[in-house]
Amino acid sequence: MKRMLVVGIGAGDPDHLTLQAVKAIGLVDVFFVLDKGEAKDDLVRLRRGMVEAHGRPGHRVVEARDPERDRTAAGYAGAVEEWRSRRAVVYERLIAEELGEGETGGFLVWGDPGVYDSTLAILEEVLGRGAVAFEYEVVPGISSVAALTARHRTSLTRVGRPVQVTTGRRLEAEGPGDVDDIVVMLDARCAFAGMQGFDIYWGAYVGTPDEILVAGPVEEVAERIKEVRAAARERKGWIMDTYLLRRRDPLS
Amino acid sequence: MKRMLVVGIGAGDPDHLTLQAVKAIGLVDVFFVLDKGEAKDDLVRLRRGMVEAHGRPGHRVVEARDPERDRTAAGYAGAVEEWRSRRAVVYERLIAEELGEGETGGFLVWGDPGVYDSTLAILEEVLGRGAVAFEYEVVPGISSVAALTARHRTSLTRVGRPVQVTTGRRLEAEGPGDVDDIVVMLDARCAFAGMQGFDIYWGAYVGTPDEILVAGPVEEVAERIKEVRAAARERKGWIMDTYLLRRRDPLS
Repeated sequence: MKRMLVVGIGAGDPDHLTLQAVKAIGLVDVFFVLDKGEAKDDLVRLRRGMVEAHGRPGHRVVEARDPERDRTAAGYAGAVEEWRSRRAVVYERLIAEELGEGETGGFLVWGDPGVYDSTLAILEEVLGRGAVAFEYEVVPGISSVAALTARHRTSLTRVGRPVQVTTGRRLEAEGPGDVDDIVVMLDARCAFAGMQGFDIYWGAYVGTPDEILVAGPVEEVAERIKEVRAAARERKGWIMDTYLLRRRDPLS
Repeated sequence: MKRMLVVGIGAGDPDHLTLQAVKAIGLVDVFFVLDKGEAKDDLVRLRRGMVEAHGRPGHRVVEARDPERDRTAAGYAGAVEEWRSRRAVVYERLIAEELGEGETGGFLVWGDPGVYDSTLAILEEVLGRGAVAFEYEVVPGISSVAALTARHRTSLTRVGRPVQVTTGRRLEAEGPGDVDDIVVMLDARCAFAGMQGFDIYWGAYVGTPDEILVAGPVEEVAERIKEVRAAARERKGWIMDTYLLRRRDPLS
């Protein structure tokens, strides 16, 4: 039987790796790296460093080109699902052709594999297609949310109260509703800027040498965040940021 | 200056420790252990094992009795805040009397220090009281949520969709509303049992040798979860469980 390990490697700090992840990396015969064609050299370097530091002697690294997502499609979820299916075809080929029987393949996933990452869904789709068989396990990782709140030394949750994790797209479209505590991931739109009455804890490249943290009332710091965000994105060619919004006078 | 490290140690598997947490534990001169007077021997043993494995030679361990929470009080949040203030008095005394200038004190926190844990709020309250001064840093940890979804090999989030983290108390009182994906922590009431139309991914003692996992439609597995939960609680004297609810036919 072939085996796959989906390993969460944390939010950007090599020391976010868990001991479980270190051991898992040491079991991998073949690392699969999907090149997104993006300019995230730092991330590629960081992942390569983890493989070199903890990989077993003789491991192989197989790189493949990730299919392009159709960013012109009308429906976001539909476009992502269609993209996922095309990626499943690529993954299926990699597992069929590059991984031998009895061998262990590995995907190293940023943050936690359960948080806005498609690897698990793609592997389920590959299994559903029925052309290759394998077992797989998931190793949890430090998510960018956990990294963010730790660096701000604040709590994700308030006593006995809920918190909602969502996307910038959805926050922009629907507003905060009656939610008092919101974590936003994947926000290219700076949806936070309109969130009157909230404090924001924002961070980019959290855990890396480029880390930027800004916190304060949205009314006071939103413009500054937009500026440092744009400047950082320009300088590095990409940005990975996350934030927590906390209503100052809770509704509920 | 005194320094405190608040270290997330993961959800129960000693290998949930991150490399950052291992290094942090190695910096601690004095570990503060607040005994809750509960029968969680396994947890005490697990934490002790981490300190012995990764602590620096000559470290000290200071144990103190955690104040009792008034479980008869009418308001939950108010009772927790009052309890927190009494704990701040204890923490203040520990830091003042047991930690020398230039030394590093450590709290080892289950899961992630940002998720339904009071240590950070208590330290802020101690600082606010003004009687002792210290710096502090937070090391993120694998939360029971990340551990749960990894063991179920499922994703916390669906593509482009929000997820809400809440408590059993609140779910029972307010129902799911229009939320499609809900994580529940701290649920002694089995509020999941009434959640028609949802799938549940439930786990107890996740990451430990006692781990129990049950997943399926609420209508089919709720009674089994209640039974295994009650039996496990009886057998071990305590239970730590978490679950993800996912609406089968999303509303939004």
